[in-house]
Order: sequence, then C-alpha cells, then structure tokens
Amino acid sequence: MPQADSFYLHDIPLEQAWQRFDQALESAGMNGVLGSEEVELDEGLIGRVTAAPVWALTSSPNYHSAAMDGFALRSETIHNAMPTAPVILAVGEQAAYVDTGDPLPVWANCVVPIENVEPLNLNGAPAANARKPEQIRLRAALPPWSHVRPMGEDIVATQLILPSGHVLRPVDLGAAAASGHKALRIAKKPAVAIFPTGSELVALGSEVRHGDIIESNSLVLAGQVHSWGGIPHRFPIIPDDLAKIRSQVLAAAEDHDLILLNAGSSAGAEDFSAQVIAELGQVLVHGVAVRPGHPVILGMLRRSDGKMIPIIGVPGYPVSAALTGEIFVEPLLARWTGRSPARPIEIEAAITRKITSPAGDDDYIRVVVGRVGERLLAAPLARGAGVITSLVRADGLTVLPRGTQGVEAGAKIRVRLYRAPELEQTIFCIGSHDVTLDLLAQALATKSRRLVSANAGSQGGLVALRRKEAHLAGAHLLDPASGKYNLAAVRQYLAGVGVNIYGWVGREQGLMVARGNPKGIKGLTDLARTDVIFINRQRGAGTRVLLDYQLEKSGITPTQVNGYDLEEFTHLAVAAAVASGRADCGLGIPAAAQALGLDFIPLFHEHYDLIIPIEFAAGPLLAPLFEIMHNETFKRDVAALPGYDISRMGTLIAETAT
Amino acid sequence: MPQADSFYLHDIPLEQAWQRFDQALESAGMNGVLGSEEVELDEGLIGRVTAAPVWALTSSPNYHSAAMDGFALRSETIHNAMPTAPVILAVGEQAAYVDTGDPLPVWANCVVPIENVEPLNLNGAPAANARKPEQIRLRAALPPWSHVRPMGEDIVATQLILPSGHVLRPVDLGAAAASGHKALRIAKKPAVAIFPTGSELVALGSEVRHGDIIESNSLVLAGQVHSWGGIPHRFPIIPDDLAKIRSQVLAAAEDHDLILLNAGSSAGAEDFSAQVIAELGQVLVHGVAVRPGHPVILGMLRRSDGKMIPIIGVPGYPVSAALTGEIFVEPLLARWTGRSPARPIEIEAAITRKITSPAGDDDYIRVVVGRVGERLLAAPLARGAGVITSLVRADGLTVLPRGTQGVEAGAKIRVRLYRAPELEQTIFCIGSHDVTLDLLAQALATKSRRLVSANAGSQGGLVALRRKEAHLAGAHLLDPASGKYNLAAVRQYLAGVGVNIYGWVGREQGLMVARGNPKGIKGLTDLARTDVIFINRQRGAGTRVLLDYQLEKSGITPTQVNGYDLEEFTHLAVAAAVASGRADCGLGIPAAAQALGLDFIPLFHEHYDLIIPIEFAAGPLLAPLFEIMHNETFKRDVAALPGYDISRMGTLIAETAT
Repeated sequence: MPQADSFYLHDIPLEQAWQRFDQALESAGMNGVLGSEEVELDEGLIGRVTAAPVWALTSSPNYHSAAMDGFALRSETIHNAMPTAPVILAVGEQAAYVDTGDPLPVWANCVVPIENVEPLNLNGAPAANARKPEQIRLRAALPPWSHVRPMGEDIVATQLILPSGHVLRPVDLGAAAASGHKALRIAKKPAVAIFPTGSELVALGSEVRHGDIIESNSLVLAGQVHSWGGIPHRFPIIPDDLAKIRSQVLAAAEDHDLILLNAGSSAGAEDFSAQVIAELGQVLVHGVAVRPGHPVILGMLRRSDGKMIPIIGVPGYPVSAALTGEIFVEPLLARWTGRSPARPIEIEAAITRKITSPAGDDDYIRVVVGRVGERLLAAPLARGAGVITSLVRADGLTVLPRGTQGVEAGAKIRVRLYRAPELEQTIFCIGSHDVTLDLLAQALATKSRRLVSANAGSQGGLVALRRKEAHLAGAHLLDPASGKYNLAAVRQYLAGVGVNIYGWVGREQGLMVARGNPKGIKGLTDLARTDVIFINRQRGAGTRVLLDYQLEKSGITPTQVNGYDLEEFTHLAVAAAVASGRADCGLGIPAAAQALGLDFIPLFHEHYDLIIPIEFAAGPLLAPLFEIMHNETFKRDVAALPGYDISRMGTLIAETAT
Repeated sequence: MPQADSFYLHDIPLEQAWQRFDQALESAGMNGVLGSEEVELDEGLIGRVTAAPVWALTSSPNYHSAAMDGFALRSETIHNAMPTAPVILAVGEQAAYVDTGDPLPVWANCVVPIENVEPLNLNGAPAANARKPEQIRLRAALPPWSHVRPMGEDIVATQLILPSGHVLRPVDLGAAAASGHKALRIAKKPAVAIFPTGSELVALGSEVRHGDIIESNSLVLAGQVHSWGGIPHRFPIIPDDLAKIRSQVLAAAEDHDLILLNAGSSAGAEDFSAQVIAELGQVLVHGVAVRPGHPVILGMLRRSDGKMIPIIGVPGYPVSAALTGEIFVEPLLARWTGRSPARPIEIEAAITRKITSPAGDDDYIRVVVGRVGERLLAAPLARGAGVITSLVRADGLTVLPRGTQGVEAGAKIRVRLYRAPELEQTIFCIGSHDVTLDLLAQALATKSRRLVSANAGSQGGLVALRRKEAHLAGAHLLDPASGKYNLAAVRQYLAGVGVNIYGWVGREQGLMVARGNPKGIKGLTDLARTDVIFINRQRGAGTRVLLDYQLEKSGITPTQVNGYDLEEFTHLAVAAAVASGRADCGLGIPAAAQALGLDFIPLFHEHYDLIIPIEFAAGPLLAPLFEIMHNETFKRDVAALPGYDISRMGTLIAETAT
C-alpha cells in the first residue's frame, strides 16, 4: 500500500502542538495584546479587557461627608454633655443639619444622629420641624470624627483600581468612574474570519435534500469568538474548490487577525485545508492527539505585507469544531486581549458508567452532573464527534488523559464545568425512552427543574435506581406470568428498596413501516419473512421484552428474524432507521412513527409507569413532577399524541416495602 | 421627640419584601415573560433566552453518512473474505470511494476504511491513486452498518432541542441550526430606565469640586441590567427637585418596564423617592432588613393607560446600589425573560477574622478567596456601604443571616462566588502597606498572578503568617535594641516557622504636612505643640513602632501628642487625613505625600522587607514575584518613586530555621 502513509495524520500531543504554535506566533509578533483603544465608560464595556492599569485620578469621597442624617458640630462643644447635664447648642453657629452624604461644614468634626438630638425652638419648646430647630439639646458626648465618612474612605488618588488584563464587570465601571475616569484604555477586539467549506453544506433555512448538511459550525464558532471577546465574521459557504478557498482565505487574511477554516482539515480526497495553508504560508501541526477533534491543523498565513497571521483548520464534526474552539481559539483570544485564559471551575463526581478510551489521545467526555441522594454523579453523554446535542446537554467535560484506557463505573472523576450545575434542580431519569418525556422535560423547565433522561431501557432504569444513580425510572416491563406491568420486575430488581409505582401513560405498540407499507407488513409473523429487515431495541428495553413475549406466543424464533441483532436505543432511533430504509420495520410507539412520517400498524397496548424511590417521592425536587401529572393542560397535550391514554397518569399503582 | 418615627424606615425581612412585590407584580400582569420576538440565528443571540421550546424540524444527519474515509460497499459481498482468501470488488458497481461525511450510496450498507483496502488497477497492480483504483482487494469481513453514521444519530426530527427559558450559548445555536431552524422565538429584552438623582452629583468627566460626587451608580446599574438581559437607559442626573423627578419618572414609565430611581431612598430632608412613588402610584416597601442596602423602596407606578409597572428606589451608597441590583433587579429580569434566576456557585472557606454583624439584618460581607497551603480562606473586605472597591476586589459574598451576631475568626462560612476564584493564582499578602505593592500587583497581573494585599500593619502580617493565612508579609519593624529591621520581630512572632527575609525597598519616613507647611512643622518635637493635630497609624504598624521609638529618643510622651489616638490603617489614608485638614501632619512615606499633593519633611530611613515562609518561597505561586524582584524595568519604576532605594530588592537578608 504505497500511499498508506498519507491516509494518516501525524497526531502529536496537545502541549507539543501549542509549543509549535507559540513559537510561530512569537516570531510573528502575534503572541500578546494586538492593540488598544480609548473607550468611554458605558455598559458596552462589560466583558471587555483593560489594556492598561487604571490608577485613581481622584479620591472618593473627595471630602469628609456625613455618614448619618443629623447635626454636624464640634466634638469639644459637647464633651461634658450627660443625661443629667445636657448641653444646648445654637443651630447655625454651633451646629448644622446634614443629610447622609452631605459635606461636613469645615468647622465641624462629628455628626450627632438626628435621633439623639432634642430639637428645640428658642423658647425651649420642641421644634415643629426636627430638621430645622433653632437650637438642639444633647445629653451625651461623642468622640471627634464620629459618624463621618472621611475623605478617601473608598478611593485614595493614585491607588490601583484595576490592573491591566482585567475583564470589566458592572462594579468595575463604577469604581473607574468614581476614581475620576471618563474613558478607559481597552484591548481591541481581534477580528476572526470564519470560513465554512464543503460542497455538502447548505445555508441555514435552505431546503435540506438527501446528502445535504445544514452549515451550523460557523454559528458555533462565531458565538464562541463573540463570547471570548473577538469580532467574528462569518463568510458564506465555499464549495470544495481549492482555488476558491485559497483566494478567499488570502483576501480575508489582509483584515483579520485569525482565520478559521472549517472542515476539509482531515486527509480525505476533498480535504483541501492543509494544502491551502501550505501554499499560503506554513502548516505547523496537522493532527493533535485529542478526541474528538484530532484532525486539526495549525498554521500561519503570509499577508501581502509579509506579516504572518495564524490560521486554524477546524475539523468538520460539530463537537470537534466546538472543542477546537475551546482548546485553541479561546487561549488565543485571551492572550490577544490580555486577559487570563478561561479557567473552568472543577468538581469531583462519580461517573455513572464505565468509559473506555483510546490510550493515545486526550479524551474529552461530555457529562451531565446531578446529585442523587448525597452523591454527586456525572453521567457521560453520547461520545460521537457528530453529536452536537451532547454539548448542548453537557454541564461540563471530563478529560481522560493520554495513557489511560478508561475509567470504571463509580470512579471519581474531575469535571470541568461549563456552567454552574443546577444540582438542586436536576432530576435524573434513567430507563425506558418515551416521547412524552420530552413534553415532561419542557413542562418541568417552566418549574425550575431540569429533566436529564438517559435511555437505558426499562431494566436499565431499575438497575440505576438500585445503584442510586437516578431519581426515577420509566418502565413498561411486562411480566409474562401475570400479564401485568412492572411490579414483578420492581420486586426482582429493587428488593428492599421501597419504591412507589405511579401510572404515567398507556400506549400502543406496533410496527413502524415506511409510508404506504411497501412490503405489505401486517403483523409479527411478517418478521419471519426473508425479504423483511427488522430493527430491534436493545436488551433490557421493555419493547424488546414485549417483542420476545409476543414472538414466543407466535412461535417465531429470534434466528428467524432478519435484523433481530440490529439494536437501537430509542423509539425515535428505530423510526429513523425505518425512515432511512436501513430497515423495513421496527416495533415501537405511534408517536415515533408519526414524528418521522411513517405508517404504523398497532398491535399491542401496554402500561408505561414511573418508578420512584420513596425517599425521592416526597422530596421538593420531584414536587413539580407531581403537579404536572395532575395538570389538566399537560394531560390534554399528552393525550393529543397518537396512541396515548392518560387515564392512569399520577395514580399510585403500587408501593413496595423497604 | 414628636417626629422621631419619621426618621426611621420600617425595615422588613427580605422574603416579606419580595412577597409584597410579587403580589403587586402579579396583579399588574408583570410577573412573567414580558413578550417575545422572532430573531434570526446569529452570534448576537448568545445570552438571550428562548421564549418557546425548540423542537427539531429535521433530523441530523438526514441521511446515512460515511464515518470514515474509505469504500462503501454491501457487507454481504465480503462476508467470506479472509487474509488467505481475499475478495476483489469492482469499483463503481460494487464499491465506491467516500470521504467522511459523504452520503452512503443507496445500495451500500457499510464502509471499509481506506487503510484496510488494497487499491488495484484492472491488471492487479497497486493503483497509483488509492482513492481512484479500478478495483479493490479486501481480506476481512465487516458487519452491515459498520463505519456508517446513521441518519438521526445527532438529532431526530421532533425531539426537544432546547426548552423555553434556556439561556443561549454557542453550541445551542449550532444545535438549533442543525435541527432546521433559521430563527428562534426569543424573550424580549425588558427596558429599564435608570435615574440618578441628587444635587451633589456631577457627571462623569466633570471637574470635581468640594462636596461633589461623581455619579457612578447609574453605570453600575446599567452594566448589571445589560449583563442580566435587559436594555438599560441611563438618564441625566436630576437635582433634588421633587417636581422634576416626578415629571421625568412619569414620562419614562410610558416606555419602560422598570424604573430605577437612584438615591433619595432614605429618610433625609431631600430624600424624595418615597414621596414621588407614593404620588405616582404606591409604595409597597420602604426599608428591607439587608445590610448594606436597607433603605430600598419597592413600589408600583401607574402609566397613563392605567397599567402598573414596578419602580425601585435604589439606595445611594455604591455598595448598597449594586446589592439592590443583585437582590431585586436580577430576579425581576430573570422572570421577565423566562430564565432561572442566577444561582451562584457556593464554596466553603474559613473566614480570616472575626466579624460582628447587626442581629436584625441579613449582612452581606464581601470576601476575597484564596488558598494558603491546604486551607481555603475567605478574607473579609471593607464593610462600608460606600466602598465600591470592596465589590471590585470581591470574589464573592457571604451572608450572615438575621439572628446571627457574627462569626469567629477561623469559622467555616459559605461563599457565594461572583467569579471562579483563581485559587492557584492568588497571593495573599498581609502586613504593612506600601505604595510599591500596587506596582507589584500590576506587574504580577501580567504574569497570571493576583496579589491580594490586606493592610494589617507589620506585626499583623507576621501574626497572619504564623496562622497560615498569608503567603507573604511586608514588614519594617525596627528592633530598638539592635537598630536592625525585622529579624528580631520574626524570631519573636514566627519562632519555629522557617521563613526567608528578602530585601524589598529602603524608604524614607517623614512628616506629611499641608502644601506650604502652614504650621511650620520641622520635626518630631513639633508634635508636642498644642496647635498641631497629628494623625497616627494603628498599633502594630511599623510606622507606629518607628514613631514610638523616635518619640522616646526625643523625650516626648504620647499624651503630649494631640491626635496620637487617631488611627489610620495606610499611608495613603494618613495622607488623605492631612490633605483634608482633619490633621496637620502624620508620619509616613514620601510617595503617599506626593500622591495627595502634600509637602514632606524627611526624617528617617528604614528597611521594608518581604517575609516569606520557606514552604511558599520555592513554590510555583510565588515564582513570578522573584522574577519581578530581579527585573530591571520594574526596579527602575520603583526607584522612580520619591524616597525609594532598591539596592536590596530581592536579596536574601536572613533565613530562620523551622
């Protein structure tokens, strides 16, 4: 295989990649703040970065001010005052009314709070207006400078207010203003050109045909650049055409500080990024040992004036693209604006399932974090580089470094948080998937709850409850012996745990087939036909249990079913497999068939219940769930989905003892 | 005192205040999302909030795509292939080259990675272009659907992509785009009018005369409103004029959702806010039991169309104003945009000094968080409501709830973080204050270090080192017996700790006097004059030790010094006291005198050293400090300050044993 070498990128460790990039940036004079500008104080400065230290020009307050409403006077005049020997002072000459914040008269050196003063008329009677008496009587002494806010209490001229490289927040603007500034010297926003490339890409809002991909990475990259303090410039999609890519990149280099060339960074036939960069400058790195994201390219481009600027070939898979942003673009924008790179808060959590990891790469695992009972748990999300929804759901990342081959379930891992995890608001639901859980998630979101559902099948959910890794599980496990749902399985898997079983929905199960049912499928017996490809659910799924039970009743063995071993983890995934022609039919629910425009052949009716450990059933976390189960609008929305019956929703079906 | 009642606000607990506010907002129909708009996907959506759930319109990918570069084929055609029994397929009919991401040909059901394929010409020789062979040889079977990214792997049409009330991040835009959206339904930004009031206020950039205050609160409030998703509108300063305030507030009510009326919310003579609100609508709450910030007013205004909108009387002190924003404005903007209110991350830390707290109020203490050795510490900052710099420096807040009277030093407290504390970057420096520490702070900021210096005097710093509450201390403690600096005090206070003493600066000490020296002060003996008011440093300060030593040498007793008992905690504060006329002179350093435009009478020369425990001296945290001490540019900057000598900077003066 003479060319085999060219199929592989030469992945190098991340630190080594940065080292090469750093050297090139240093030589190009692109390794520090790119420039600064004077900007007036305004809320638009929030999030921008100081390019020079801010020293106080004036003191604040710049005078001694009253710290209370009351009368300013000289401490000496009342130093003999006692309850039994009051002192009377004339207002005007010896005392003056001041509101909090008023400057002290130059002759005064303390403030007696108004409530400690007897306001009098000249005749000694109480004054009508306590703030405008003719004289005041005082019955206690007060040390000098009492209730005075001295000049410079907050800010003394010349002191350091903000260092350079400081990311401005609202209070910083206030302090800069109070110390006499009208404008600040601010780091310029770096300009970043973002080029989506690929003949398969179509722009947002286009009609999507077979083989088209909606171009979305440039939005993510632009959002990142914006969040990190740069000015993103999204260019239109360029098809896979070497000359076009080259000329547009070259033109953009003239007035941008960084080019992000998205997709085409791998080693496929139409991956032109490396070639473009080599022709216009220099490829420094092609391939970094991080996953997802390894086919990244780091390089430098030469502008017409000879100046070199960096270019990053960003991989095309959405998760790879977003992580490339975090790993390479964020630190670059940080140093170009003079701020510290982002340092996510890290927490420790127990991982809920075993993860295997390629030993040669730093492996970035997206996780959702929640608390079940006393334990902090991190549930890994879909690992695929193409699954952008895994980043949407993620609370953070855990990185399994090169040289580790994975972690066991229950192991403690460090999670770099993307956001403050809503630990007191997060409901972990593991078990069987149902379309109504999305409706529930939306309804819970309006009640400050986040439903994180992992699809592990009905049995998987019960196992998760036993291992205290979920707050509730959805299950529809038929007991062939009794013909009843869930109770037998709960007794088997959750002996001694103490759970309540609540009715959720009754639903139809049946075969999803392509629109018009081209293969004329009528029922389970058709699964034994050699011209029919079936798509199955995974072991432990209630639908799989149902299938096996019904196949046996029909006298069909699994080996007779073409595709029995092809497994998907959700109803929607099964529907997608049928919709795409990958299979001819699959057992599932009508809502999934409807979602993908499939025909549905109803065969069975089943109970889908929510299994909730008693310790959580009464707690505040799940209280909104119970409200929703008894909300008529919500129930009507569920009943409107095809094949659903809400007659048992919220009913306590069974309790098991601890 | 007939009117005493009117001097006091009737503070009510925060929850009760919110309860009244909630009821009024509910009646006014102002307790939910105010409105929504359709906005195109663009980086400008970052931080905005979804006003409707986002359901997937299309699946992603919407076709089966190749997950590797290689040849698409049907699995059945190679199911007998083995190393010793290869199978040859014709390219075009039986196999087709695909790049990663390409759609699978409809007839294919798997992809063999290019590195597992032998590309051949028709004559059986290796093909020149591995991606364009005439036939391929394969030596292993592959299950169907291997290396295929199935339709819907990321997104299945109809699934929930984002709930309503979701704050958009870059990846969310990508997921919304990939699921077929071009625009999203977004909560409208609430419009907030901000009125600074007060005859003492002057606008940014004005010349500041005696009694003027630079208006800075509106900038902080506008920055907060902007950060929290509203549109702030800063109005010009209105003087204390009831009619003007009333008419402008009434006009703004027509096209804003919230009015913030800053200052005038207390009960002083010119505090008109409550009256304005009562006249234009209703005062719901006047006074909340929180500190700082208690004189807040919550009310409702009536628009010309009869609709009621909320108005908040925001206290005038900067810290009170900013906290009022956090306590009342942020939750309001959260519900108006449909998102969850901000939930700061909380950590536990040991408080470094005793705090006493008013039992009747929730007390908001600003703290800086750092790690010294293994301990997480929270150092309280200045408590005054006027000290905006305390918010600038703060990493977070700790709230001492009503009913508690304080906490002891070392007690564990919960800190609500404003920002991720830079624990590995934060250097705690407690001890004597010197102007050069501000230069050091700025220099460290460029090296990813944050210097948090607390001024506790030289002795205070040594005590903090002993209690492991600081990484270093600055000290200039004269040993009267030896005439040497610091070593004796270190031996006394840090017996057995093991520290290094590094030279920092030599500096002059002398008397700061008003410009022109109106009292003709020449030396220490003038402190005994009855017409001279002195301002002293606190007990434990090196300058205080020096004073006492020199007074004794001159035969002057403290009781002879007018003002000996008036204490300030920093050189700059002493200088400010002199500049303001509060005192005639104070002992200090020339840089402080210069900063405030004072004259300086040099009297003594002293050594200011840095005391660093051995355990920190060699660690990475302080490495940049040692770089800076040997940096010629930095030393030149220090030497340029009046009265400084840098000849011993960075020199190891002494080591003490553990």
